[in-house]
Amino acid sequence: MTDTDDSFHVFDTTLRDGAQREGINLTVADKLAIARHLDDFGVGFIEGGWPGANPRDTEFFARAREEITFKHAQLVAFGATRRANAKAAEDPQVKALLDSGAPVITLVAKSHDRHVELALRTTLDENLEMVRDTVAHLTSQGRRVFVDCEHFFDGYRANPEYAKSVVRAASDAGADVVILCDTNGGMLPAQIQAVVATVLADTGARLGIHAQDDTGCAVANTLAAVDAGATHVQCTANGYGERVGNANLFPVVAALELKYGKRVLPEGRLREMTRISHAIAEVVNLTPSTHQPYVGVSAFAHKAGLHASAIKVDPDLYQHTDPALVGNSMRMLVSDMAGRASVELKGKELGVDLGGDRELVGRVVDRVKERELKGYTYEAADASFELLLRSEVKGRPLTYFRVESWRAIVEDRPDGSHANEATVKLWAKGERIVATAEGNGPVNALDRALRVALEKIYPQLAKLDLVDYKVRILEGVHGTQSTTRVLISTTDGSGEWQTVGVAENVIAASWQALEDAYTYGLLRAGVTPAE
Amino acid sequence: MTDTDDSFHVFDTTLRDGAQREGINLTVADKLAIARHLDDFGVGFIEGGWPGANPRDTEFFARAREEITFKHAQLVAFGATRRANAKAAEDPQVKALLDSGAPVITLVAKSHDRHVELALRTTLDENLEMVRDTVAHLTSQGRRVFVDCEHFFDGYRANPEYAKSVVRAASDAGADVVILCDTNGGMLPAQIQAVVATVLADTGARLGIHAQDDTGCAVANTLAAVDAGATHVQCTANGYGERVGNANLFPVVAALELKYGKRVLPEGRLREMTRISHAIAEVVNLTPSTHQPYVGVSAFAHKAGLHASAIKVDPDLYQHTDPALVGNSMRMLVSDMAGRASVELKGKELGVDLGGDRELVGRVVDRVKERELKGYTYEAADASFELLLRSEVKGRPLTYFRVESWRAIVEDRPDGSHANEATVKLWAKGERIVATAEGNGPVNALDRALRVALEKIYPQLAKLDLVDYKVRILEGVHGTQSTTRVLISTTDGSGEWQTVGVAENVIAASWQALEDAYTYGLLRAGVTPAE
Repeated sequence: MTDTDDSFHVFDTTLRDGAQREGINLTVADKLAIARHLDDFGVGFIEGGWPGANPRDTEFFARAREEITFKHAQLVAFGATRRANAKAAEDPQVKALLDSGAPVITLVAKSHDRHVELALRTTLDENLEMVRDTVAHLTSQGRRVFVDCEHFFDGYRANPEYAKSVVRAASDAGADVVILCDTNGGMLPAQIQAVVATVLADTGARLGIHAQDDTGCAVANTLAAVDAGATHVQCTANGYGERVGNANLFPVVAALELKYGKRVLPEGRLREMTRISHAIAEVVNLTPSTHQPYVGVSAFAHKAGLHASAIKVDPDLYQHTDPALVGNSMRMLVSDMAGRASVELKGKELGVDLGGDRELVGRVVDRVKERELKGYTYEAADASFELLLRSEVKGRPLTYFRVESWRAIVEDRPDGSHANEATVKLWAKGERIVATAEGNGPVNALDRALRVALEKIYPQLAKLDLVDYKVRILEGVHGTQSTTRVLISTTDGSGEWQTVGVAENVIAASWQALEDAYTYGLLRAGVTPAE
Repeated sequence: MTDTDDSFHVFDTTLRDGAQREGINLTVADKLAIARHLDDFGVGFIEGGWPGANPRDTEFFARAREEITFKHAQLVAFGATRRANAKAAEDPQVKALLDSGAPVITLVAKSHDRHVELALRTTLDENLEMVRDTVAHLTSQGRRVFVDCEHFFDGYRANPEYAKSVVRAASDAGADVVILCDTNGGMLPAQIQAVVATVLADTGARLGIHAQDDTGCAVANTLAAVDAGATHVQCTANGYGERVGNANLFPVVAALELKYGKRVLPEGRLREMTRISHAIAEVVNLTPSTHQPYVGVSAFAHKAGLHASAIKVDPDLYQHTDPALVGNSMRMLVSDMAGRASVELKGKELGVDLGGDRELVGRVVDRVKERELKGYTYEAADASFELLLRSEVKGRPLTYFRVESWRAIVEDRPDGSHANEATVKLWAKGERIVATAEGNGPVNALDRALRVALEKIYPQLAKLDLVDYKVRILEGVHGTQSTTRVLISTTDGSGEWQTVGVAENVIAASWQALEDAYTYGLLRAGVTPAE
């Protein structure tokens, strides 16, 4: 159970509201994996879905109970107040919430008068009765109940007395927290702060906030509600959610811990934030946002040459918080804007001593500029940059093998099946090797042919696994006739590195990135270059 | 010249501060194109760069003067206060600002005492003198001067009296606006509001705000400064900028116009916002953020089946503003969460009458679910979805040609050159056609072979142009062995459409998306299907 006290709630709804994001489609296994990450991060509550509303969510609750021992979090089931003119105790949707076994239940209630009339099609009084009856029934069954007041802020504008009466009905019936939801996301912080303060004063209920990001202010809106006295914040990992998204869990928690000095996570968990943000992005199969506050790879990256020289004097003059506190790190970017100071710092970061050799540094800068003009990007391909740097330091490329030629063929047959075949001809340790392999695509066939060719000479390559593959078309107005950039992420189980290839077509660019990926893997494994 | 008055400034710094974003590298032509878009949008000021600091920016100012007739905006040159212990009138950096010919100059000044000492390496008094002298010199030459107080908020925390003395020095010497910059981006709205209010009361200077997004609050911070009396906001298109980025121009302007009811753009320009946001993303060669407030393709997209049925009753219950006001539109997403109501609405949006045929709608929903399980995404491929929908309505696929087989070969030769060749065998209007073509890559070769095969029968295809090509690896933990999804954008000059292909390799997936792209192009051109 949680080791932070109950006076402030960090409530995550990635698995329910976050899953509404365009492009996200979670399996039960995905949901279990995300729940583990969120518990590991230390949130107090994990809203898992709507048991009964769809078989996936029902299965999730059943399996979570069996398979996960939560360290910090309590599992929350989401559902609606009972149907109009019925009894909560007899409503099958309400029963499914109890059947989920979740110790906490969030009920969504209408608090905007027009939604009651047009969407729910019942009377304002019956809606209040639905809230009271459902909350009372669930608490009588030993569950803790939170009530989400949907469309609260729009409802408050239209009919403040009715909106407040829903808050009172929920609180009086036994709901522990009543959450004011900016469901359409149109609010700004000053408005949120004023409404939360008034509702708190007028109702005395414990209040929470649920903000959507349609004005780009969801994080600020959440903090404004806290400023006004809310003690429960509903967020989603990486801000996933419908339309623009929800309040992003990570900057909200970071602001509370680092800027407010408020302890909202168990000791030491904030340092895991960057890792957990990226791990969840991996599960939902979305590329982590490079520019996300605190946790993005760019969040503490410095590009300007102007800054780079001053950062050497005192890094704290140029960062708003120590990146290590959120598990991130400062990065110096290599780019044609950065210049010498950046390359020197980058070399230091990679453990390559440039020893104040001005001519060498100048040569590296020139080489980076020349390659970036062709479309290479070393900002996103540290391993390719390190190979370039080491080549310049040594005065010649790091070479483990020398490729003579390669070929890939993709054939679509009349029966709809495909044949993919690649042949690689290369030299390694004085030996000429020709290898052919099939794959499920041309790049995979090339990857396999390269492994087949090299595996006897370099058995270390067996550990290598390609984990991500990105293709970008440069000068994007010519479709398939443009330059192609490929970024490949490779792992050897203990680390991951990125390499880049640029060519006039996707296969040739992939090949370059593959060559760099294997060369870097051999370098990491401590293998001495062939020459 | 501007047709909004001077009492409130929308100041854009995409070309200067925005260009610091990781991954952005602008040519002079790019900068000119962006300046035209920003002027078209109606901002009052466009900061173009630092003339004299690098040849690209010097050239930009020279060419902008020659080539662009601004409708709304004034061009602004950015530079620094003069060197310590010298005269502004003799400083070559200051001279370059005048030489740029820009009518407005923004000077960056240090306002944090430690930065003066450690980065600038001069005394606090000399820094004040540098501000006074440089502002006075530039105004004496007939230029309007704004002063950016770098690191103002951190400086104010460390030494509020000194920070304010810099504001006073700038204002007294003739600067029209003094901009308080949250350079490290660590502030929250309540802090910004308190500091701006105090500085305004204590100095009487006209104040502006420049916020970075490191806490995820840059938009809210900008609005908080306006609430406290700032009348000049510095922003960048799409929030581009160093680290996490700058305050995003679009949600700031939208909040001011739609939420504050403040006219900050010329009449009618807000409706161009979505188009201009995407056009600028195209120039900087970054994929437009799908989840950007107001202008993202997801910003008014509805996924949940629950909402979809209620939206039919009254769309305004489910959106915080009318998307047409910002040039965007409501979209219903087709996904396995959406169900019947969404498919019906989507059909209506596409002009396909599903006529309340429950069985037909059910068939479409099933087909979408089955395809999405395989990795297709119709959310991002409206044209492929429309083809699927029309096929189900007709009871058979829309067919203009029938492919027998195809083949693509990529060969890397010992001299480093590549050969790419594709052969397509197909039937169209009863004729069997075999065509071979070369290209700069396998997809391009296939595209060309397909055109060669079809061009005599369907001359309409000559107008089609592939404008974007995206590759996504699904189940991203297996590298090149995973399923591949390709999204292609095609234009015929008057419109653009997206198609999707999914297969075990990138070439086969591209082929599917190409087939759909050509089929949809022929449908748009009004060509009757072959059977």
